Amino acid sequence: MTRWWTTDETHDPARTSWVASAQGHADFPIQNLPYGVFSPAGCQPRIGVAIGDMILDLAACADEGLVAQDAALSHPTLNALMALPADTRRTLRRAISALLSDPAMQAAVEPHLHAARDCTMHLPARIGDYSDFYVGIHHANNIGRQFRPDNPLLPNYKYVPIGYHGRASSIRPSGEALVRPCGQRKAPDANIPVYGPTARLDYELELGVWIGPGNDLGTPIAIHDAADHIAGFCLLNDWSARDFQAWEYQPLGPFLAKNFHSTISPWIITAEALAPFRIAQPARPGDDPEPLPYLADADDQAHGALGLSLSVYLTSAAMRAEGMAPMRLSHGPASNMYWTVQQIVTHHASNGCNLMPGDLLGTGTISAPLREGFGSLMELSAGGREPLSLPTGETRAFLADGDEVTLRAVARADGFMPIGFGECRAQILPARE
Amino acid sequence: MTRWWTTDETHDPARTSWVASAQGHADFPIQNLPYGVFSPAGCQPRIGVAIGDMILDLAACADEGLVAQDAALSHPTLNALMALPADTRRTLRRAISALLSDPAMQAAVEPHLHAARDCTMHLPARIGDYSDFYVGIHHANNIGRQFRPDNPLLPNYKYVPIGYHGRASSIRPSGEALVRPCGQRKAPDANIPVYGPTARLDYELELGVWIGPGNDLGTPIAIHDAADHIAGFCLLNDWSARDFQAWEYQPLGPFLAKNFHSTISPWIITAEALAPFRIAQPARPGDDPEPLPYLADADDQAHGALGLSLSVYLTSAAMRAEGMAPMRLSHGPASNMYWTVQQIVTHHASNGCNLMPGDLLGTGTISAPLREGFGSLMELSAGGREPLSLPTGETRAFLADGDEVTLRAVARADGFMPIGFGECRAQILPARE
Repeated sequence: MTRWWTTDETHDPARTSWVASAQGHADFPIQNLPYGVFSPAGCQPRIGVAIGDMILDLAACADEGLVAQDAALSHPTLNALMALPADTRRTLRRAISALLSDPAMQAAVEPHLHAARDCTMHLPARIGDYSDFYVGIHHANNIGRQFRPDNPLLPNYKYVPIGYHGRASSIRPSGEALVRPCGQRKAPDANIPVYGPTARLDYELELGVWIGPGNDLGTPIAIHDAADHIAGFCLLNDWSARDFQAWEYQPLGPFLAKNFHSTISPWIITAEALAPFRIAQPARPGDDPEPLPYLADADDQAHGALGLSLSVYLTSAAMRAEGMAPMRLSHGPASNMYWTVQQIVTHHASNGCNLMPGDLLGTGTISAPLREGFGSLMELSAGGREPLSLPTGETRAFLADGDEVTLRAVARADGFMPIGFGECRAQILPARE
Repeated sequence: MTRWWTTDETHDPARTSWVASAQGHADFPIQNLPYGVFSPAGCQPRIGVAIGDMILDLAACADEGLVAQDAALSHPTLNALMALPADTRRTLRRAISALLSDPAMQAAVEPHLHAARDCTMHLPARIGDYSDFYVGIHHANNIGRQFRPDNPLLPNYKYVPIGYHGRASSIRPSGEALVRPCGQRKAPDANIPVYGPTARLDYELELGVWIGPGNDLGTPIAIHDAADHIAGFCLLNDWSARDFQAWEYQPLGPFLAKNFHSTISPWIITAEALAPFRIAQPARPGDDPEPLPYLADADDQAHGALGLSLSVYLTSAAMRAEGMAPMRLSHGPASNMYWTVQQIVTHHASNGCNLMPGDLLGTGTISAPLREGFGSLMELSAGGREPLSLPTGETRAFLADGDEVTLRAVARADGFMPIGFGECRAQILPARE
């Protein structure tokens, strides 16, 4: 079994594609090769691979025998492909990389390329269950301080990768607008709550983790095997209504504050593609407890974190009207996670809970220690008390109608070609009457 | 539109079936006609209707033109049938009732009957999302007192139908054993947690609510329309590891304490079948607040609750070895719910969250005010301090390996034939090594 930090010829920074736009592409050079589900104009959804500004119709390639694994490739979702063992997925990646780099294949493959700008992206999988975690320790500290000033980080935080179940049905691909939700909120000085549009709409910067092969109900996943159950990654904006959240979240956790819409980037950045970007898990401070044995693994500690740069951009309707560039709200590394994604997977299945191919796990908001890396407005605006100024002179404590939020991620490592996640973007529509 | 408390000839207590075992059947007389998915021995799953000790192959009846709606009936799940408008489902019910009551139809229909004891029951639907609520106010009080002695019922309880997302993948039909889960627990006097089998395994007596037609993302469901989005009901045992729950549940709610296995009764008792058993919502105490307007509806108040008797039975391995009858642990009415199921549905969609046909909502544990009606061992044993005695002389503070728990429900109303839910039963296997 090839471990997750193993690189091969598909990661060679010198490899180029005969697809011209792939060279130096910020997101999708030939070293990336993410999977997605797309529709060419007027056509049915099918499985594709992003390459530069183009999308390769992988289903068509399988039909013509250009790649194997045609059964998994003939579906309008990636669930069957994700269910393949990691080694089989790696073989497919090598075949696709060869197709797109070998000039001799250009004539056969080129008819199956579509310009990405003419295609519609769909959710990459039928998401059976979606769980969200809380492993961004600086976010947990920042938010905890606002909800529980005297007790920001609860005693379980450094033992339990805290998580909860979220809503699968309201996850939408990048580009689909969300409606400002209505709900119950109670002002601190009010006697009773009111029902109406949220006044504290926020984004949350998260990574999404796509489950590959699952586990049987009742059978945990050992930490050393956890990476083999991860198919890939995406960006996840866990839109949140902070006023609903404060009123509803006790004792059973967030519910309507979070489940009205979640936006994901539509391309699955595979675990294989990210092999060169595995880094050591940051050392725990000396007085932090060791993980319990079921969560402890030397390989995971040495290679289990991801060398990713994350950033968040905002445009308001006024900024767009004036042709202004998006304003970067924050940027920081993905290493500010107290638990690795492998530890999340192992913990989730540690009671025998069965994970299924195409399930989605969110990391929780990833914030850096300092303000420039805070992953939500709740943190950037200090709970709304310190609004941000936009280039138009507008201010934002929380999001306004017409605002558009875009998340981005880039993986970088010395000696390798950087690869990006593509954008995770959505605009806010006014609440319904 | 026929409202949900409207009865018709299918509810006539004088109607009888030519299926002999249906007469006086405790669960499935001809007045019930629940839908399920079953396999006759050695055959593929298909849609059926329970009648007495038999199951009618509805897919085969549709194939032969004995009933209409064949497209929805040809699937191995009930999702498409549940998506039909309530009036269409009612028309189908009348057709099935006619088939099974009219002696002239016996010759044509009888070949499509299978003895239930020879069939395997499956989950009735592909459950997209599962949400669990907390509307049993006596349970909320009892449990709240154990977790937060000074603050059992939080200030939001009488305004917000409190709920959270649960795990869909680990829901299993009645009869499938569960494995005692492992997880983190920390004794109150311990410094650090340990990982191992739960020492406080419990059941929870709940009703499950099956969603029928869904709503579009961003579009709430008005309280007056909520009943039209409910396809039916089942029993739900929300198995819980109380020691995991106490350690993990703050701040984001229960997760691994609940998601290792949930058992449901496999028959969908339709909203149509329950029309005669609709009762008024119990009056709120005078000092309780009125529901906010989006949750208030006079029809719902007058007809929105269910006249059901619920009960829980236990057998230990020793009891079964000695041929003892199951011990009834508790019994009580389903009316001890602070919110109606319609209020749950409307609240869930009040932020625009999209419910889908085949989604499952749990009510939360339904306890009566007094001990004889407590819906979990956590309540019956006062948090483990007052173990119960079994007829063998064994005691139980929490569940032991080999224990089998069965939930039952019967709907009764003057002038109508009682109908039952069938059993919701599962046995506990030891933790894995």
